[in-house]
Amino acid sequence: MAARLKGNAVVGQSGGPTAAINSSLAGVIQEALAHPEIEHVYGMLGAIKGLLDGRLVDLGRETPSVVEGLRRTPSSALGSGRHRLGQNDYDRLAAVLKAHDIRFFFYIGGNDSADTTMQVSRLAAEVGHEMTVIGVPKTVDNDLVETDHCPGYGSAARYTALAMMEAGLDSEAIASYPVKIIEVMGRHAGWLAAAGALARREERDAPHLVYVPERPIDLDRLCEDVAALARRQGRVVISLAEGARGPDGKYLSDSSAAQLDAFGHRQMAGAGDALAALVEARTGIRARCDRPGTLQRASMALASRTDLAEAYEVGRAAVRAATDGLSGYMVTLVRESSSPYVCTTGLARVEDVANREKHLPAEHVNEAGNYPTEAFLEYARPLIGDPLPEFVRLAKIPV
Amino acid sequence: MAARLKGNAVVGQSGGPTAAINSSLAGVIQEALAHPEIEHVYGMLGAIKGLLDGRLVDLGRETPSVVEGLRRTPSSALGSGRHRLGQNDYDRLAAVLKAHDIRFFFYIGGNDSADTTMQVSRLAAEVGHEMTVIGVPKTVDNDLVETDHCPGYGSAARYTALAMMEAGLDSEAIASYPVKIIEVMGRHAGWLAAAGALARREERDAPHLVYVPERPIDLDRLCEDVAALARRQGRVVISLAEGARGPDGKYLSDSSAAQLDAFGHRQMAGAGDALAALVEARTGIRARCDRPGTLQRASMALASRTDLAEAYEVGRAAVRAATDGLSGYMVTLVRESSSPYVCTTGLARVEDVANREKHLPAEHVNEAGNYPTEAFLEYARPLIGDPLPEFVRLAKIPV
Repeated sequence: MAARLKGNAVVGQSGGPTAAINSSLAGVIQEALAHPEIEHVYGMLGAIKGLLDGRLVDLGRETPSVVEGLRRTPSSALGSGRHRLGQNDYDRLAAVLKAHDIRFFFYIGGNDSADTTMQVSRLAAEVGHEMTVIGVPKTVDNDLVETDHCPGYGSAARYTALAMMEAGLDSEAIASYPVKIIEVMGRHAGWLAAAGALARREERDAPHLVYVPERPIDLDRLCEDVAALARRQGRVVISLAEGARGPDGKYLSDSSAAQLDAFGHRQMAGAGDALAALVEARTGIRARCDRPGTLQRASMALASRTDLAEAYEVGRAAVRAATDGLSGYMVTLVRESSSPYVCTTGLARVEDVANREKHLPAEHVNEAGNYPTEAFLEYARPLIGDPLPEFVRLAKIPV
Repeated sequence: MAARLKGNAVVGQSGGPTAAINSSLAGVIQEALAHPEIEHVYGMLGAIKGLLDGRLVDLGRETPSVVEGLRRTPSSALGSGRHRLGQNDYDRLAAVLKAHDIRFFFYIGGNDSADTTMQVSRLAAEVGHEMTVIGVPKTVDNDLVETDHCPGYGSAARYTALAMMEAGLDSEAIASYPVKIIEVMGRHAGWLAAAGALARREERDAPHLVYVPERPIDLDRLCEDVAALARRQGRVVISLAEGARGPDGKYLSDSSAAQLDAFGHRQMAGAGDALAALVEARTGIRARCDRPGTLQRASMALASRTDLAEAYEVGRAAVRAATDGLSGYMVTLVRESSSPYVCTTGLARVEDVANREKHLPAEHVNEAGNYPTEAFLEYARPLIGDPLPEFVRLAKIPV
């Protein structure tokens, strides 16, 4: 444990925005302003690149109502970035940290951000600049190790479950396209696509099939499943991860990379469009894909209140860890109990988090590879917050 | 005015589902059950085709809580359909109406449904079956004539505006794809794409450009606008109607119909993907498209409370018109005042509504054809209900 420091703090937001990452920022700012050993709280505009370029703002000069308003504002208010810190940046970084007397460094982000956090931590030690470095987890992908789950995930998971419920009822009413594929974020991990299954309370509810990147899809079996479901109930709703892969292990989205548009340019189709085309061709059943894209990570109205609250708390916990003299850690979420759901914060070494990905464990997907298991549902259910809405169906008693 | 009738009522839901059409159904059911001259209230499963096939259910036997629950349930609870009534159906239709002693006929839907309503009305008169026929408006497209606006539109418009706000903030934080196109429903009319502009309070807010089917797009000008905006602010968010057309008047979506997927099949890309490819090719700026598809008409959490309330009232008004002995009308929404917003119901002859489409008037789109005017915004603003959320932006005071 380092000696207690005194000086300025800086905070950045990295990677893809979420509905909850500004809650973490609010937690960092409010907690930091409450600690007398932290003189100024600076924000880096556009993540680490902004720091390197000296684009720093004084967050202590924001009005308290704006800082509090961050908790209901989606996306990354400081601006984000995907710059990967490298050795070429070290001199500049050291200079900026010293020039601004940065003694507390907070970085909110996912795997790449944990790598940045780790490098910053090492660099500070190497150049003898006393500074605590703490990472704050964030990713809708939920793929950080060492933490039970990631702030941002619960909200995007709630969005996904609601999309399945609502688009599912839509398909139930009119099946112009009997196969509806909803393409869900998740290039390498299926946590979000699997969360679609939280929408399902009875067999006829959507989604009927769920495909995740962890399990290459048996396309013959998929087409058989789709055809059988379409025969039985007239419609099929599929929750499909954008990173879903075919039997050869290649992304479905790559399979249609050969598309040329009318202007003669290669056009990258998503997994959903590729699968819709395949299903139509093989089964003769019309299929279409809804692809909400960035909307699913940006929706505040559909956010999980549990997620927003936890995101705020990890931000505060990061500051407390730093002022306690800890460095080189990422705050984690520790589930004490699932029912009732109780979750506290913990700490993990950033080296243990950086550049690793947590995939859906084998026991979270059924044997057929086409649906999450009850174990997954138990894991995910508390994270989406308030119970999902109770929609009604008519009893439809024949005349 | 026909003589007061006594007998059974039937109600159907036709065309694309919306967040509000079940509110209209609840209004019809609850009001009909309150009228002693209406003995039973039947529902047709799957619209007019269900009636022809005798698939009728007794809505009076639904529990009151389920009927009330329709008001918070999106999609069409009776099931919908797109069967276009023709002369071949007339004998069967007359037989069913007589067999079930249907004296009150309610049909909730858009243009095509108004046509059905008109035909049913004429047929009943021709075969001497005394029956009142009343249409109830519904369409997210907002393209029915004779009514100020259509139930279902306000909710989808609110969804669209929120999508622009949230996906817009997302683009502001990270511009991996500096051009974000959000593809919005509306094949022939731009009411929904234009509603995206309700999200914009200041110049940097999304959407920055809006394209509607009513105005063929000057693609050279579009690319110039996109490049200029991207230079100035680093990002561009476009609200694009799925029915947007190029300078030749053809749908943008058709322009990429030549796409073949990896399996050698023709794949119909949407307008958004087609435009994204074109923008990338001509400007060199990366572009992507979010395409929420059916989610935009099915979202209950993002629905307009004003819209839901009006949808319920038009259902009730239909029953009152019928029990007053009127027939051959569609209920309309009549705006008494925009500020404060006051709206009542009225009636229009179904002949005046059927098979016609209301497009955005010329004065609702600016001269450049790339943004709605203040006149449109004044029209649309009250329809989306509660004020849009107040997200915050940091003042970003430099250190």
